[in-house]
Amino acid sequence: MVVNQNRVEEDLLGQKEVPASAYYGIQTVRARENFNITGYTIEPELIVAISLVKKAAALANMEVGSLDHTIGNAIVSAADEVISGNLHDQFIVDPIQGGAGTSVNMNANEVIANRALELIGREKGEYDVIHPNIHVNMAQSTNDAFPTAIHIATLQFIERLEETLKRLSATFFDKGKEFDHVIKMGRTHLQDAVPIRLGQEFQAYGRVLSRDLKRISKLHEGLLEVNLGATAVGTGLNADPSYMRRSVEILRELTGVPFKNAEDLVDATQNTDAYTEVSSALKICMINMSKIANDLRLMSSGPRAGFAEINIPARQPGSSIMPGKINPVICEVVNQVAFQVVGNDQTISMASEAGQFELNVMEPVLIFNLHQSLRMMNQVLDAFRKYCIEGIEANIEVCKAYVDQSIGVITALNPHVGYKIATKVAKEALETGVSVRDIVLRDNILSEVAIDQILDPFEMTRPGIAGEPIPTNK
Amino acid sequence: MVVNQNRVEEDLLGQKEVPASAYYGIQTVRARENFNITGYTIEPELIVAISLVKKAAALANMEVGSLDHTIGNAIVSAADEVISGNLHDQFIVDPIQGGAGTSVNMNANEVIANRALELIGREKGEYDVIHPNIHVNMAQSTNDAFPTAIHIATLQFIERLEETLKRLSATFFDKGKEFDHVIKMGRTHLQDAVPIRLGQEFQAYGRVLSRDLKRISKLHEGLLEVNLGATAVGTGLNADPSYMRRSVEILRELTGVPFKNAEDLVDATQNTDAYTEVSSALKICMINMSKIANDLRLMSSGPRAGFAEINIPARQPGSSIMPGKINPVICEVVNQVAFQVVGNDQTISMASEAGQFELNVMEPVLIFNLHQSLRMMNQVLDAFRKYCIEGIEANIEVCKAYVDQSIGVITALNPHVGYKIATKVAKEALETGVSVRDIVLRDNILSEVAIDQILDPFEMTRPGIAGEPIPTNK
Amino acid sequence: MVVNQNRVEEDLLGQKEVPASAYYGIQTVRARENFNITGYTIEPELIVAISLVKKAAALANMEVGSLDHTIGNAIVSAADEVISGNLHDQFIVDPIQGGAGTSVNMNANEVIANRALELIGREKGEYDVIHPNIHVNMAQSTNDAFPTAIHIATLQFIERLEETLKRLSATFFDKGKEFDHVIKMGRTHLQDAVPIRLGQEFQAYGRVLSRDLKRISKLHEGLLEVNLGATAVGTGLNADPSYMRRSVEILRELTGVPFKNAEDLVDATQNTDAYTEVSSALKICMINMSKIANDLRLMSSGPRAGFAEINIPARQPGSSIMPGKINPVICEVVNQVAFQVVGNDQTISMASEAGQFELNVMEPVLIFNLHQSLRMMNQVLDAFRKYCIEGIEANIEVCKAYVDQSIGVITALNPHVGYKIATKVAKEALETGVSVRDIVLRDNILSEVAIDQILDPFEMTRPGIAGEPIPTNK
Amino acid sequence: MVVNQNRVEEDLLGQKEVPASAYYGIQTVRARENFNITGYTIEPELIVAISLVKKAAALANMEVGSLDHTIGNAIVSAADEVISGNLHDQFIVDPIQGGAGTSVNMNANEVIANRALELIGREKGEYDVIHPNIHVNMAQSTNDAFPTAIHIATLQFIERLEETLKRLSATFFDKGKEFDHVIKMGRTHLQDAVPIRLGQEFQAYGRVLSRDLKRISKLHEGLLEVNLGATAVGTGLNADPSYMRRSVEILRELTGVPFKNAEDLVDATQNTDAYTEVSSALKICMINMSKIANDLRLMSSGPRAGFAEINIPARQPGSSIMPGKINPVICEVVNQVAFQVVGNDQTISMASEAGQFELNVMEPVLIFNLHQSLRMMNQVLDAFRKYCIEGIEANIEVCKAYVDQSIGVITALNPHVGYKIATKVAKEALETGVSVRDIVLRDNILSEVAIDQILDPFEMTRPGIAGEPIPTNK
Repeated sequence: MVVNQNRVEEDLLGQKEVPASAYYGIQTVRARENFNITGYTIEPELIVAISLVKKAAALANMEVGSLDHTIGNAIVSAADEVISGNLHDQFIVDPIQGGAGTSVNMNANEVIANRALELIGREKGEYDVIHPNIHVNMAQSTNDAFPTAIHIATLQFIERLEETLKRLSATFFDKGKEFDHVIKMGRTHLQDAVPIRLGQEFQAYGRVLSRDLKRISKLHEGLLEVNLGATAVGTGLNADPSYMRRSVEILRELTGVPFKNAEDLVDATQNTDAYTEVSSALKICMINMSKIANDLRLMSSGPRAGFAEINIPARQPGSSIMPGKINPVICEVVNQVAFQVVGNDQTISMASEAGQFELNVMEPVLIFNLHQSLRMMNQVLDAFRKYCIEGIEANIEVCKAYVDQSIGVITALNPHVGYKIATKVAKEALETGVSVRDIVLRDNILSEVAIDQILDPFEMTRPGIAGEPIPTNK
Repeated sequence: MVVNQNRVEEDLLGQKEVPASAYYGIQTVRARENFNITGYTIEPELIVAISLVKKAAALANMEVGSLDHTIGNAIVSAADEVISGNLHDQFIVDPIQGGAGTSVNMNANEVIANRALELIGREKGEYDVIHPNIHVNMAQSTNDAFPTAIHIATLQFIERLEETLKRLSATFFDKGKEFDHVIKMGRTHLQDAVPIRLGQEFQAYGRVLSRDLKRISKLHEGLLEVNLGATAVGTGLNADPSYMRRSVEILRELTGVPFKNAEDLVDATQNTDAYTEVSSALKICMINMSKIANDLRLMSSGPRAGFAEINIPARQPGSSIMPGKINPVICEVVNQVAFQVVGNDQTISMASEAGQFELNVMEPVLIFNLHQSLRMMNQVLDAFRKYCIEGIEANIEVCKAYVDQSIGVITALNPHVGYKIATKVAKEALETGVSVRDIVLRDNILSEVAIDQILDPFEMTRPGIAGEPIPTNK
Repeated sequence: MVVNQNRVEEDLLGQKEVPASAYYGIQTVRARENFNITGYTIEPELIVAISLVKKAAALANMEVGSLDHTIGNAIVSAADEVISGNLHDQFIVDPIQGGAGTSVNMNANEVIANRALELIGREKGEYDVIHPNIHVNMAQSTNDAFPTAIHIATLQFIERLEETLKRLSATFFDKGKEFDHVIKMGRTHLQDAVPIRLGQEFQAYGRVLSRDLKRISKLHEGLLEVNLGATAVGTGLNADPSYMRRSVEILRELTGVPFKNAEDLVDATQNTDAYTEVSSALKICMINMSKIANDLRLMSSGPRAGFAEINIPARQPGSSIMPGKINPVICEVVNQVAFQVVGNDQTISMASEAGQFELNVMEPVLIFNLHQSLRMMNQVLDAFRKYCIEGIEANIEVCKAYVDQSIGVITALNPHVGYKIATKVAKEALETGVSVRDIVLRDNILSEVAIDQILDPFEMTRPGIAGEPIPTNK
Repeated sequence: MVVNQNRVEEDLLGQKEVPASAYYGIQTVRARENFNITGYTIEPELIVAISLVKKAAALANMEVGSLDHTIGNAIVSAADEVISGNLHDQFIVDPIQGGAGTSVNMNANEVIANRALELIGREKGEYDVIHPNIHVNMAQSTNDAFPTAIHIATLQFIERLEETLKRLSATFFDKGKEFDHVIKMGRTHLQDAVPIRLGQEFQAYGRVLSRDLKRISKLHEGLLEVNLGATAVGTGLNADPSYMRRSVEILRELTGVPFKNAEDLVDATQNTDAYTEVSSALKICMINMSKIANDLRLMSSGPRAGFAEINIPARQPGSSIMPGKINPVICEVVNQVAFQVVGNDQTISMASEAGQFELNVMEPVLIFNLHQSLRMMNQVLDAFRKYCIEGIEANIEVCKAYVDQSIGVITALNPHVGYKIATKVAKEALETGVSVRDIVLRDNILSEVAIDQILDPFEMTRPGIAGEPIPTNK
């Protein structure tokens, strides 16, 4: 006995076979053929988000009397199944696709329609009963359903990231306290400058990340306005005003996120600045994190031929050939994700710029990159905290030794002896290796009491002119 | 009689000749030799800003008793001269320079010291009396004086830009009203979609720009915190706490801008996220403007072989060979500035990422690009308004004709006849050239009354299902 | 009976459990823990390539007498299994990783060691017999083995891409011939210029792609030099000179690719310009392809409110709400891949710049992006040819109509009547809608014979002054 | 008596006043009004180049009989004046402009026409006698004259840069020889690896720059093909075939550069890959130079709290507050120009992508950035050589001390004792501070003779297994 393994579906372009067992339909099959770009399929967060939109739309359509309740309820149940994690393997389209997300939207419409058909005892493909476009997509267009789904998923990624950033920021501040008494040389231009405390440096890392967190927290605002109800071009054609209001209210209830109707739907349908704004904030953050990772890699350089001011936790053998080598692998992967996020921001900028008239058809690549940035950042910054920052130890003696032998401390003498004399001393110290203190004493520039007061390294890490203005011996 | 045209100055590296008439000194001469990169010298806005810092510092240093009043007052007077526009030709260093702005700072210290010397009846170069480093730079480091100056100048550029954006945004909204009744085809994917009003499009342009303006207005916050008093690495070494407080208070008075001491000076001295944040907001804005410029270029394409929906003002003959040709030159230059701003943002991102430890030594190239973006945007968006947007006219008849002959209007039939039948009609219309209306009537799909109600183009540009739910003839 | 499902392995950092069935070992487990960034594992091309390196190294080590033949042969057999496609599921590390590829290298060393152990009748984990570092990694470092593998895989991607480009280029030229007689308006600034033939446009597309192909073909050169034998820092420490020579010779035999030892191994180990060069060539190509995709989207805009000069094949219904809509989805995805490749190039640039001293530890993110660009380009440009270019049809009548009604044809009159008179005629034509021909005849500027000769559109698409220099009627 | 200080000119758009003394005309005045973007005017190299094109065109037009000799010769003489450096102040248009360079072209046409008029005893503005469009621009369009000029200027910049690169590369190789015997620690991941010679590092710098030079030398090819004769859209309308051939031949004679007619003029008029190719090569080079600058900044870090392996020449006092501080300012400005060039490449990429149909109207911003990159690179890399590389000195003792105390040397023991035992020794050395040598001797792992042979640092910097395979004491 031969079982036919395919069913035949039909659309604007003609007929096509679809695997009999598939919940997706003809348009998904076409999309799969057309777009084989990344080798991946769309992410679960987006699958869930588009299904939430479908559910909200169906509920609103039933409320306003446009959708038969038997059909509507079946759609809601089918959407719920997807939301709860089922049927994700039926979402087979490539995340980078032409058509501005039509293929994602149709993949969802078809899967939900076919599952809904089954739920009311029908066969997959009986679109005369429940049609992907007529019923599941009712009062929607890809151009409002897809961006609304993106907003849902993006906000979810942002919330996750905020938690990660909060924890990392707190860890920086904790380390700031832990290292508050570790005196070390401050460096500018990679050249010895004046003393600073290691704790001040970690505190500054915490500070800049706090600002990043603040910037990222402000991103919610731009994403809460959704264009559901805008339909094709933002004019709301075929969308009943009560449906427009209710669908967003229901979405708010379903997600617990205070979504609202965009004030200007034409604007909201064609512009993508809400996304470029997210990407920019991510980029700024990762640039800051990369700078920190660089500092840590420098401070932990060595063990013998480097700065060796801190130890970062050993996470894996560092070399297949050099025994005993340990590398700052977590810092390195922070750098790499930073470069990725900067590159992604570039892609996103170009995609955003390429919008035309009523729609930005480049949204798929834009979102692919935006969500990749969000996901990678979350992963890497969590690892940064757990596998690196938390376990950092200071080499207090090494840090102190650099300060003791440094010339930069001479800066503290400026207010007492003037820049010109200080320069002369510095020059001699540099050339001869004699210490600043010894030269000053030898030449009777300052008394021993005065110089010890002035050159107290801890004092030098706090505002003010070190040492009381003592008359010099000159 | 031979006049010696040079004077000799000395610094850490030895002696060097300086033109006798020059107000700048030895370090400026060295900087000029070292950095000949752009062919330009530093911008007037930065010259004024650094001089404001010098003035505020001198006043504060006098108040806290560190600076002799004769000297201090001479410094203040000299700084005032620069602030009022004099001696700008003495600022000869290249904006892109190594040394994190030391050369800008020293150029200012030297010019002000030498002019101050003259004001008290001394010769240029008598640094024993007034020294660029000891007196003019008192309690300062390049690492706090230069960033503070940057904040001053940047805020000034931002304020100027805000005015320009406000005017442009208002113009978009005015045009939105003017064109509110011009029905035209909406386009997605550059393919005919459903009708929209030209006014809705311009309104959307105004909307997105309003958001840009909002984003840019928020940038003040990050720039009001200045690190004056941080000195070399943010620890405030050699800066008296009262000086730290007073110098910023005085700066506030001098500028009328509510500057305040940065909460964490170590953080404020090493991190550049305030600048990357500005650049990002500029980039987002110009991406949006470029999209609008593209739309306008498309809408005005023609005159005979293009869309020809609008006319944009003729600004210059468009061709050296083709008589009568007019090009959308202002739109094109908006695009170009957008590309420049995106590229500049890339440079700024890399410069910001390259900070190390207590300082970002890449600030000069960062600021060169940031201020270029600000300046170019201001210029081009003002031209965009004056020379393009204000004079745009709609070709109402052309717009209408596209709608009348379009197939996309069939979308309005969906709620009445269903997606499937609508698809069939659309296909026939597309293939045969027969109008949607005629096919619907011929096949008795809807009554004439119904279809006229449903296909009313103006109705289609407003939310809702066009036409009352009239029983079809079927 | 309880079976212990894990075995215990040990390395520099201590002991750790590894799934008993796993071919990978302790270092892979650590890497997996450390790096969970992309959600993907390393690509098959790289798995095969690194295994080819391991095979070549083992064969060379046996030849030079460093490696016991039983062990060596087992390693070769195990590597062969991976090369032929087995055990790929044992390569579980994330492509973006710290450690400059150590984790990829160790994943390979461990899988091959454990499989080799099995082949000689031992248990997995019996590293005293065959050790991942001692035997599989013999005379190698990650720093030479990993880049060599990258070269192998990258060349393979490039070869694949060259075939795709050749086919696409040929298709453009075929279309160039097919459309050689289709006269249409040339456009500059999106404004009507002078006539051109559609075939000339497609020929130009073929031309620019031919140059891209040439640029990409030249990339082989930079990748044929491999640094195998460089070991840790390029000095060749622990690598026998005969091994160095033979390992590359064997690699050449195994792959059929004329690899050779890099002339300067220190240089070859630390610099990544071979990769930035590849990425640049890809970027240039995709910028060109994106421009073409844009042209095609414009030419196919409509069907009623656009240029409508060509039809591109319908690949899927274009809208979930607008019946009958067809979008240029393949062109759109070409644009999107272009944006991706440009962004990737940015990431690659930053990663390349971040190399330090003897190694660039950012290689993993660099390669992740480079290979993504290569893979996506190959996929999308093949689709571009098959699903778009091959099926393009010209709307000959529409093209002709634009020319007939255009004003730009007046340019051909310049040599006969002068730019000034031509400008006057153009102005009147533009304002009144009267045709250029009619005005010229009405004002007796040229005879009917002359003007017909001059305004022959086909003549205008060829070099030279259209029309013989006929005395005008004036 | 009142002298009228303006003359009135007229064009397609109407009349406008032009300063009576100006050589430029009405279209230049319009352009100046429209484009006030950068604050700069077009560069002298481009002024000269466009004038060379005008001269070549006039000579060719005379030859083929299209241009009256009195007029033609006057044009040639006027062009010669500009070429020799006169009248450059009459080129007042902004380099970033809409109109694809029309304003540059018309500025040249007008200046040359008016000067030519004077030369034949006429007044400026007597365009009936010599007309900017009819005579100076004869058989040309901006779309061929401007790109041809760009090719001329760009090649000149490239040639200049090649000389600079050759000198810098030679200096790296010289230093490579000078430092050939300086043993130092190699570093990977900023962690101590195995010994290397400082000379090997400088040799590698020379190598990578040699490849950059090679890449840049190959750029000539793409720029030698010029599209002069293409006129408006590449079809050659209004350009006599003999003129097309001769104008390029004459250009070749005038410049000494082997320019040739582009094979496909339509292609050559619309595509800008010759420029993106240049920009890419520049970017690759500057990425490499930035990496080198970073290495040098690290090696020279200190003087007391850094690596201190080399000294780079002191070029200016490094701090306004810290006496005696010297910073690697030249390296820092190399980094900054690298970031600029990367950002410029981004702008160039977007500008190139934005071409449409027969022309890329974004050329002005593209060229502004391309030439800025070329100019800055030339300046900064010359300074890099003169002010930095040539004067670098090695701190031989410091370099040696790092090697002596390092653990990484243990790698050389691998072939003798195996990776596992070596790891154990490394671990103890790291934890206790006891030297590798001492542990090996204490535990009788190797004989003293053997270990001294194996641990000879110089040997470790050459290929091969250090030390003969001596039986261990075990």
